[in-house]
Amino acid sequence: MRILGIDPGSHITGYGIIEKEGNYLRHVLHGEIKAKKESLLSAMLISIYQQLSAVIIQIAPQSIALENIFYGKNVRSLIKQAQVRGVVIFAGADKDIPVFEYSPLEVKKAVVGYGRAEKRQVQIMVKAILKLPVLPSADAADALATAICHANFLKEQSI
Amino acid sequence: MRILGIDPGSHITGYGIIEKEGNYLRHVLHGEIKAKKESLLSAMLISIYQQLSAVIIQIAPQSIALENIFYGKNVRSLIKQAQVRGVVIFAGADKDIPVFEYSPLEVKKAVVGYGRAEKRQVQIMVKAILKLPVLPSADAADALATAICHANFLKEQSI
Repeated sequence: MRILGIDPGSHITGYGIIEKEGNYLRHVLHGEIKAKKESLLSAMLISIYQQLSAVIIQIAPQSIALENIFYGKNVRSLIKQAQVRGVVIFAGADKDIPVFEYSPLEVKKAVVGYGRAEKRQVQIMVKAILKLPVLPSADAADALATAICHANFLKEQSI
Repeated sequence: MRILGIDPGSHITGYGIIEKEGNYLRHVLHGEIKAKKESLLSAMLISIYQQLSAVIIQIAPQSIALENIFYGKNVRSLIKQAQVRGVVIFAGADKDIPVFEYSPLEVKKAVVGYGRAEKRQVQIMVKAILKLPVLPSADAADALATAICHANFLKEQSI
Protein backbone atom coordinates (compact mmCIF):
# COMPACT_ATOMS: atom_id res chain seq x y z
CA MET A 1 0.00 0.00 0.00
CA ARG A 2 1.43 3.31 -1.09
CA ILE A 3 0.88 6.34 1.16
CA LEU A 4 1.64 9.97 0.38
CA GLY A 5 2.17 12.15 3.44
CA ILE A 6 1.95 15.91 2.96
CA ASP A 7 2.90 18.79 5.24
CA PRO A 8 1.21 21.82 3.64
CA GLY A 9 2.84 25.19 4.17
CA SER A 10 2.59 28.57 2.53
CA HIS A 11 6.31 28.65 1.67
CA ILE A 12 7.32 25.00 1.75
CA THR A 13 5.05 21.99 1.34
CA GLY A 14 6.86 18.81 2.31
CA TYR A 15 5.85 15.47 0.86
CA GLY A 16 6.94 11.91 1.40
CA ILE A 17 5.85 8.58 -0.04
CA ILE A 18 6.19 5.23 1.70
CA GLU A 19 5.12 1.73 0.78
CA LYS A 20 3.62 -0.49 3.48
CA GLU A 21 4.42 -4.13 2.68
CA GLY A 22 2.97 -6.24 5.49
CA ASN A 23 4.58 -4.77 8.60
CA TYR A 24 7.54 -3.40 6.66
CA LEU A 25 7.67 0.26 5.66
CA ARG A 26 9.69 1.09 2.59
CA HIS A 27 10.75 4.62 1.65
CA VAL A 28 9.86 5.57 -1.93
CA LEU A 29 10.49 9.29 -2.32
CA HIS A 30 10.37 12.57 -0.48
CA GLY A 31 10.86 16.21 -1.32
CA GLU A 32 9.69 19.77 -0.98
CA ILE A 33 7.46 21.97 -3.06
CA LYS A 34 8.62 25.54 -2.74
CA ALA A 35 6.73 28.68 -3.59
CA LYS A 36 8.71 31.82 -4.34
CA LYS A 37 8.36 34.19 -1.41
CA GLU A 38 7.52 37.10 -3.68
CA SER A 39 4.86 35.25 -5.67
CA LEU A 40 1.16 36.10 -5.48
CA LEU A 41 -1.07 33.86 -3.40
CA SER A 42 -2.95 32.79 -6.54
CA ALA A 43 0.29 31.88 -8.37
CA MET A 44 1.50 30.01 -5.30
CA LEU A 45 -1.70 27.94 -5.08
CA ILE A 46 -1.48 27.09 -8.79
CA SER A 47 2.17 26.12 -8.43
CA ILE A 48 1.53 23.89 -5.39
CA TYR A 49 -1.41 22.24 -7.14
CA GLN A 50 0.60 21.55 -10.29
CA GLN A 51 3.70 20.23 -8.56
CA LEU A 52 1.68 18.10 -6.16
CA SER A 53 -0.48 16.76 -8.99
CA ALA A 54 2.68 15.73 -10.85
CA VAL A 55 3.87 13.81 -7.77
CA ILE A 56 0.45 12.15 -7.29
CA ILE A 57 0.21 11.12 -10.94
CA GLN A 58 3.78 9.80 -10.98
CA ILE A 59 3.52 7.91 -7.68
CA ALA A 60 -0.16 6.86 -7.73
CA PRO A 61 -0.65 6.59 -3.94
CA GLN A 62 -3.68 4.73 -2.53
CA SER A 63 -4.12 7.31 0.20
CA ILE A 64 -2.96 10.73 1.32
CA ALA A 65 -2.27 11.63 4.94
CA LEU A 66 -2.18 15.15 6.41
CA GLU A 67 -1.71 16.62 9.84
CA ASN A 68 -4.46 18.72 11.36
CA ILE A 69 -3.59 22.36 11.43
CA PHE A 70 -1.84 23.34 14.65
CA TYR A 71 -4.05 25.94 16.38
CA GLY A 72 -1.22 27.62 18.28
CA LYS A 73 -0.12 29.78 15.36
CA ASN A 74 -1.05 33.38 14.80
CA VAL A 75 -4.26 33.89 12.84
CA ARG A 76 -2.61 35.30 9.73
CA SER A 77 -0.35 32.27 9.18
CA LEU A 78 -3.22 29.96 10.14
CA ILE A 79 -5.33 31.40 7.31
CA LYS A 80 -2.42 31.15 4.85
CA GLN A 81 -1.74 27.56 5.76
CA ALA A 82 -5.44 26.61 5.64
CA GLN A 83 -5.79 28.10 2.15
CA VAL A 84 -2.88 25.96 0.93
CA ARG A 85 -4.32 22.96 2.77
CA GLY A 86 -7.64 23.38 0.96
CA VAL A 87 -5.88 23.20 -2.40
CA VAL A 88 -3.75 20.24 -1.26
CA ILE A 89 -6.89 18.29 -0.25
CA PHE A 90 -8.50 19.28 -3.54
CA ALA A 91 -5.44 18.05 -5.49
CA GLY A 92 -5.85 14.61 -3.93
CA ALA A 93 -9.64 14.52 -4.10
CA ASP A 94 -9.85 15.45 -7.78
CA LYS A 95 -7.75 12.37 -8.51
CA ASP A 96 -10.08 10.21 -6.36
CA ILE A 97 -7.50 9.56 -3.67
CA PRO A 98 -8.92 9.47 -0.13
CA VAL A 99 -7.37 11.98 2.28
CA PHE A 100 -6.91 11.15 5.97
CA GLU A 101 -5.92 13.45 8.77
CA TYR A 102 -4.09 12.96 12.04
CA SER A 103 -3.31 15.31 14.91
CA PRO A 104 0.32 16.47 15.37
CA LEU A 105 0.21 14.48 18.63
CA GLU A 106 -0.72 11.24 16.84
CA VAL A 107 1.98 11.80 14.21
CA LYS A 108 4.73 12.44 16.77
CA LYS A 109 3.63 9.49 18.87
CA ALA A 110 3.76 7.26 15.80
CA VAL A 111 7.41 8.02 15.06
CA VAL A 112 9.01 9.25 18.30
CA GLY A 113 6.76 7.57 20.84
CA TYR A 114 5.57 10.67 22.62
CA GLY A 115 3.59 13.70 21.52
CA ARG A 116 5.83 16.55 22.61
CA ALA A 117 8.82 15.61 20.44
CA GLU A 118 10.96 18.30 18.82
CA LYS A 119 11.21 18.65 15.04
CA ARG A 120 14.79 17.35 15.14
CA GLN A 121 13.73 14.15 16.93
CA VAL A 122 11.10 13.56 14.24
CA GLN A 123 13.77 13.91 11.54
CA ILE A 124 16.12 11.48 13.33
CA MET A 125 13.40 8.87 13.93
CA VAL A 126 12.04 9.10 10.38
CA LYS A 127 15.60 8.57 9.09
CA ALA A 128 15.98 5.50 11.33
CA ILE A 129 12.55 3.97 10.62
CA LEU A 130 12.91 4.31 6.85
CA LYS A 131 16.70 3.62 6.83
CA LEU A 132 17.42 6.82 4.94
CA PRO A 133 21.07 7.61 4.12
CA VAL A 134 20.74 11.24 5.26
CA LEU A 135 18.47 13.29 7.50
CA PRO A 136 15.40 14.50 5.57
CA SER A 137 14.51 18.20 5.77
CA ALA A 138 12.11 19.15 8.57
CA ASP A 139 9.15 19.56 6.20
CA ALA A 140 9.78 16.32 4.30
CA ALA A 141 10.33 14.52 7.62
CA ASP A 142 6.94 15.78 8.89
CA ALA A 143 5.32 14.54 5.69
CA LEU A 144 7.02 11.13 5.96
CA ALA A 145 6.06 10.95 9.66
CA THR A 146 2.42 11.59 8.72
CA ALA A 147 2.59 8.81 6.12
CA ILE A 148 4.13 6.46 8.75
CA CYS A 149 1.36 7.43 11.17
CA HIS A 150 -1.29 6.50 8.61
CA ALA A 151 0.52 3.23 7.84
CA ASN A 152 0.28 2.35 11.56
CA PHE A 153 -3.26 3.51 12.31
CA LEU A 154 -5.02 3.15 8.94
CA LYS A 155 -7.99 5.28 9.98
CA GLU A 156 -11.09 4.25 8.09
CA GLN A 157 -12.83 7.61 7.87
CA SER A 158 -11.36 9.94 5.27
CA ILE A 159 -12.03 13.68 5.30
CA MET B 1 -16.12 45.11 -17.31
CA ARG B 2 -17.53 41.99 -15.77
CA ILE B 3 -16.78 41.31 -12.09
CA LEU B 4 -17.49 38.14 -10.14
CA GLY B 5 -17.81 38.65 -6.39
CA ILE B 6 -17.55 35.56 -4.19
CA ASP B 7 -18.32 35.02 -0.51
CA PRO B 8 -16.66 31.68 0.30
CA GLY B 9 -18.18 29.61 3.07
CA SER B 10 -17.97 26.01 4.16
CA HIS B 11 -21.71 25.45 3.80
CA ILE B 12 -22.80 28.20 1.42
CA THR B 13 -20.61 30.06 -1.05
CA GLY B 14 -22.42 33.10 -2.41
CA TYR B 15 -21.56 34.54 -5.82
CA GLY B 16 -22.69 37.54 -7.77
CA ILE B 17 -21.76 38.96 -11.16
CA ILE B 18 -22.08 42.59 -12.15
CA GLU B 19 -21.14 44.49 -15.27
CA LYS B 20 -19.54 47.93 -14.90
CA GLU B 21 -20.45 50.07 -17.92
CA GLY B 22 -18.88 53.49 -17.39
CA ASN B 23 -20.32 54.56 -14.03
CA TYR B 24 -23.33 52.32 -14.35
CA LEU B 25 -23.44 48.95 -12.58
CA ARG B 26 -25.62 46.31 -14.14
CA HIS B 27 -26.65 43.10 -12.36
CA VAL B 28 -25.94 39.96 -14.37
CA LEU B 29 -26.50 36.99 -12.08
CA HIS B 30 -26.22 35.83 -8.51
CA GLY B 31 -26.67 32.60 -6.61
CA GLU B 32 -25.41 30.21 -4.00
CA ILE B 33 -23.25 27.14 -4.15
CA LYS B 34 -24.33 24.78 -1.42
CA ALA B 35 -22.43 21.85 0.01
CA LYS B 36 -24.35 19.07 1.70
CA LYS B 37 -23.78 19.34 5.46
CA GLU B 38 -23.01 15.65 5.73
CA SER B 39 -20.52 15.60 2.87
CA LEU B 40 -16.81 15.03 3.39
CA LEU B 41 -14.50 18.04 3.26
CA SER B 42 -12.84 16.64 0.14
CA ALA B 43 -16.19 16.13 -1.63
CA MET B 44 -17.25 19.62 -0.60
CA LEU B 45 -14.10 21.21 -2.03
CA ILE B 46 -14.53 19.29 -5.31
CA SER B 47 -18.18 20.34 -5.50
CA ILE B 48 -17.42 24.02 -4.84
CA TYR B 49 -14.61 23.97 -7.42
CA GLN B 50 -16.81 22.37 -10.07
CA GLN B 51 -19.84 24.59 -9.54
CA LEU B 52 -17.74 27.73 -9.35
CA SER B 53 -15.76 26.74 -12.45
CA ALA B 54 -19.04 26.28 -14.34
CA VAL B 55 -20.10 29.83 -13.34
CA ILE B 56 -16.70 31.27 -14.31
CA ILE B 57 -16.66 29.53 -17.70
CA GLN B 58 -20.26 30.55 -18.42
CA ILE B 59 -19.87 34.17 -17.32
CA ALA B 60 -16.23 34.84 -18.27
CA PRO B 61 -15.53 37.60 -15.72
CA GLN B 62 -12.47 39.86 -16.12
CA SER B 63 -11.82 39.82 -12.40
CA ILE B 64 -12.85 38.12 -9.19
CA ALA B 65 -13.31 39.94 -5.88
CA LEU B 66 -13.25 38.38 -2.41
CA GLU B 67 -13.50 39.65 1.13
CA ASN B 68 -10.64 39.08 3.51
CA ILE B 69 -11.45 36.50 6.10
CA PHE B 70 -13.00 38.01 9.20
CA TYR B 71 -10.67 37.25 12.13
CA GLY B 72 -13.34 37.36 14.83
CA LYS B 73 -14.56 33.82 14.22
CA ASN B 74 -13.58 30.78 16.20
CA VAL B 75 -10.47 29.02 14.95
CA ARG B 76 -12.24 25.90 13.71
CA SER B 77 -14.59 27.80 11.37
CA LEU B 78 -11.73 30.09 10.36
CA ILE B 79 -9.74 27.06 9.16
CA LYS B 80 -12.76 25.62 7.35
CA GLN B 81 -13.48 28.87 5.60
CA ALA B 82 -9.82 29.42 4.67
CA GLN B 83 -9.62 25.94 3.12
CA VAL B 84 -12.63 26.73 0.93
CA ARG B 85 -11.16 30.15 0.15
CA GLY B 86 -7.92 28.53 -1.07
CA VAL B 87 -9.88 26.40 -3.55
CA VAL B 88 -11.99 29.40 -4.61
CA ILE B 89 -8.85 31.44 -5.37
CA PHE B 90 -7.40 28.43 -7.19
CA ALA B 91 -10.59 28.07 -9.28
CA GLY B 92 -10.17 31.64 -10.50
CA ALA B 93 -6.41 31.52 -10.91
CA ASP B 94 -6.38 28.31 -12.96
CA LYS B 95 -8.58 30.13 -15.49
CA ASP B 96 -6.17 33.11 -15.53
CA ILE B 97 -8.62 35.49 -13.87
CA PRO B 98 -7.01 37.91 -11.42
CA VAL B 99 -8.37 37.77 -7.87
CA PHE B 100 -8.64 40.90 -5.71
CA GLU B 101 -9.43 41.14 -2.05
CA TYR B 102 -11.10 43.77 0.11
CA SER B 103 -11.68 44.01 3.83
CA PRO B 104 -15.24 43.57 5.17
CA LEU B 105 -14.99 47.24 6.18
CA GLU B 106 -14.23 48.36 2.62
CA VAL B 107 -17.06 46.22 1.23
CA LYS B 108 -19.64 47.55 3.68
CA LYS B 109 -18.50 51.13 3.15
CA ALA B 110 -18.84 50.67 -0.60
CA VAL B 111 -22.50 49.70 -0.43
CA VAL B 112 -23.91 51.02 2.85
CA GLY B 113 -21.58 53.96 3.44
CA TYR B 114 -20.22 52.86 6.79
CA GLY B 115 -18.23 49.86 7.95
CA ARG B 116 -20.36 48.54 10.81
CA ALA B 117 -23.47 47.83 8.73
CA GLU B 118 -25.63 44.80 9.50
CA LYS B 119 -26.08 41.97 6.98
CA ARG B 120 -29.68 43.08 6.39
CA GLN B 121 -28.59 46.60 5.44
CA VAL B 122 -26.12 45.15 2.94
CA GLN B 123 -28.92 43.12 1.36
CA ILE B 124 -31.22 46.17 1.13
CA MET B 125 -28.53 48.43 -0.36
CA VAL B 126 -27.37 45.81 -2.87
CA LYS B 127 -30.99 45.39 -3.98
CA ALA B 128 -31.31 49.17 -4.41
CA ILE B 129 -27.96 49.74 -6.16
CA LEU B 130 -28.52 46.91 -8.66
CA LYS B 131 -32.32 47.48 -8.95
CA LEU B 132 -33.09 43.88 -8.08
CA PRO B 133 -36.77 42.83 -7.95
CA VAL B 134 -36.29 40.94 -4.67
CA LEU B 135 -33.86 40.92 -1.75
CA PRO B 136 -30.87 38.65 -2.52
CA SER B 137 -29.89 36.06 0.11
CA ALA B 138 -27.33 37.22 2.67
CA ASP B 139 -24.49 35.25 1.05
CA ALA B 140 -25.29 36.33 -2.51
CA ALA B 141 -25.69 39.93 -1.27
CA ASP B 142 -22.23 39.80 0.33
CA ALA B 143 -20.81 38.49 -2.95
CA LEU B 144 -22.55 41.22 -4.98
CA ALA B 145 -21.40 43.84 -2.46
CA THR B 146 -17.80 42.66 -2.91
CA ALA B 147 -18.17 42.92 -6.69
CA ILE B 148 -19.60 46.45 -6.28
CA CYS B 149 -16.70 47.33 -4.00
CA HIS B 150 -14.20 46.21 -6.64
CA ALA B 151 -16.11 48.13 -9.35
CA ASN B 152 -15.70 51.30 -7.24
CA PHE B 153 -12.10 50.89 -6.09
CA LEU B 154 -10.55 48.80 -8.89
CA LYS B 155 -7.48 47.89 -6.86
CA GLU B 156 -4.51 47.28 -9.09
CA GLN B 157 -2.72 44.64 -7.07
CA SER B 158 -4.26 41.21 -7.28
CA ILE B 159 -3.52 38.48 -4.76
